[in-house]
Amino acid sequence: MQADHHFGQIVDRLLKTGAAHHLTFRNLPAGRLIYGSDEEFDGDFALLFLRSGRLRCFSTFEGKEMTLFQMEPGDAISLHAHSMLEVKKAAELVIIGLPTFRAMALAEPELALTAMTLLDHVLQRSIRLIEDMAFHGVKHRLIRALCDTADREGRRDEHGIVLDTVPNTEDFAMQIGATRQSVSTVLAELVRCGIVHRYGTGTMVISDLGRLKRELVSVR
Amino acid sequence: MQADHHFGQIVDRLLKTGAAHHLTFRNLPAGRLIYGSDEEFDGDFALLFLRSGRLRCFSTFEGKEMTLFQMEPGDAISLHAHSMLEVKKAAELVIIGLPTFRAMALAEPELALTAMTLLDHVLQRSIRLIEDMAFHGVKHRLIRALCDTADREGRRDEHGIVLDTVPNTEDFAMQIGATRQSVSTVLAELVRCGIVHRYGTGTMVISDLGRLKRELVSVR
Repeated sequence: MQADHHFGQIVDRLLKTGAAHHLTFRNLPAGRLIYGSDEEFDGDFALLFLRSGRLRCFSTFEGKEMTLFQMEPGDAISLHAHSMLEVKKAAELVIIGLPTFRAMALAEPELALTAMTLLDHVLQRSIRLIEDMAFHGVKHRLIRALCDTADREGRRDEHGIVLDTVPNTEDFAMQIGATRQSVSTVLAELVRCGIVHRYGTGTMVISDLGRLKRELVSVR
Repeated sequence: MQADHHFGQIVDRLLKTGAAHHLTFRNLPAGRLIYGSDEEFDGDFALLFLRSGRLRCFSTFEGKEMTLFQMEPGDAISLHAHSMLEVKKAAELVIIGLPTFRAMALAEPELALTAMTLLDHVLQRSIRLIEDMAFHGVKHRLIRALCDTADREGRRDEHGIVLDTVPNTEDFAMQIGATRQSVSTVLAELVRCGIVHRYGTGTMVISDLGRLKRELVSVR
């Protein structure tokens, strides 16, 4: 994406010109949690820009968890006091407080335009999630999550599309805002139809991704 | 809000300096619909800035509607081909295509920073909506919608807080992503408890807003 490219390039340039002491760079291992409330930044929020790895933004309430977005390299998000993220794959990230960002953007207007576009991507994704929750049932949402995971991480072999590190039932439930039990019911149904095979823990084979995608049209 | 102020001021200034021919100004009566697909703009999206009145952004699917956000003066949103808005109160708005906005923002970097902050407001609201749908039942969501409406539009008289143009059951259902029937059940319950009185069509009195707000804590 052009926008990401710009942002990354500008950050790289700032690194070289010595502006790096205003920025917070982090190298975080998988499993590490990032709490907005732990970060020290002035102003309403900070911008978090992901350079490599993968993050999961989530919300919690009384022991329940809901995955909001997955972030891939090049994505950015605003980091507020209530923001919570989990490092899913060892990540390299930059956190820029608003006053610092403001100073940088006044000197380099392209930066704010790019950040605006990146935040809009996140906004559009959140609108799709709202639509999904309002208009679609658990089966539809789970099939979509499976197709997205297959498109993103799937490896083709003679049995179909192999997902080597497939989220477990609970992860899927969090991701689509459903209960574990309803996810497990739908997964069992997909296995029964022969569309999906579960092997050892954490591995899944989608024998017919085309058929799975076609289900999206017919399942509310 | 400082950000809105800036944006409005900058737009006002642009009006005076003759940059107005690059911008689309609209005066729209209540009830008018705005479809992103009807707007002519280059680039991924346009920015819609609301100067006065009120708008409702919504999504539809197979005859069902879901209200995403209400926009008040000073709010901005990105307008995509799939965006749909309804004018709830006669509105004055500005639509700026991305290339025009880019040119303006390069000359006036404050503009992109402000737009970024305004889009982030919308993003945070959408995250709250996702959390509401994932973590709270219809009763909680409806009570919150009532409290928000009371805080925004309520008029105090001897009976409590009067809402002169209260959304009907269907509007509330769309707003919180629930069915008409479940909203109607919860409203009947609130009337039975004496917290809410429904008078003629479109008018509602909340006799005890404090008690209604306290309900939010106890109701999942």
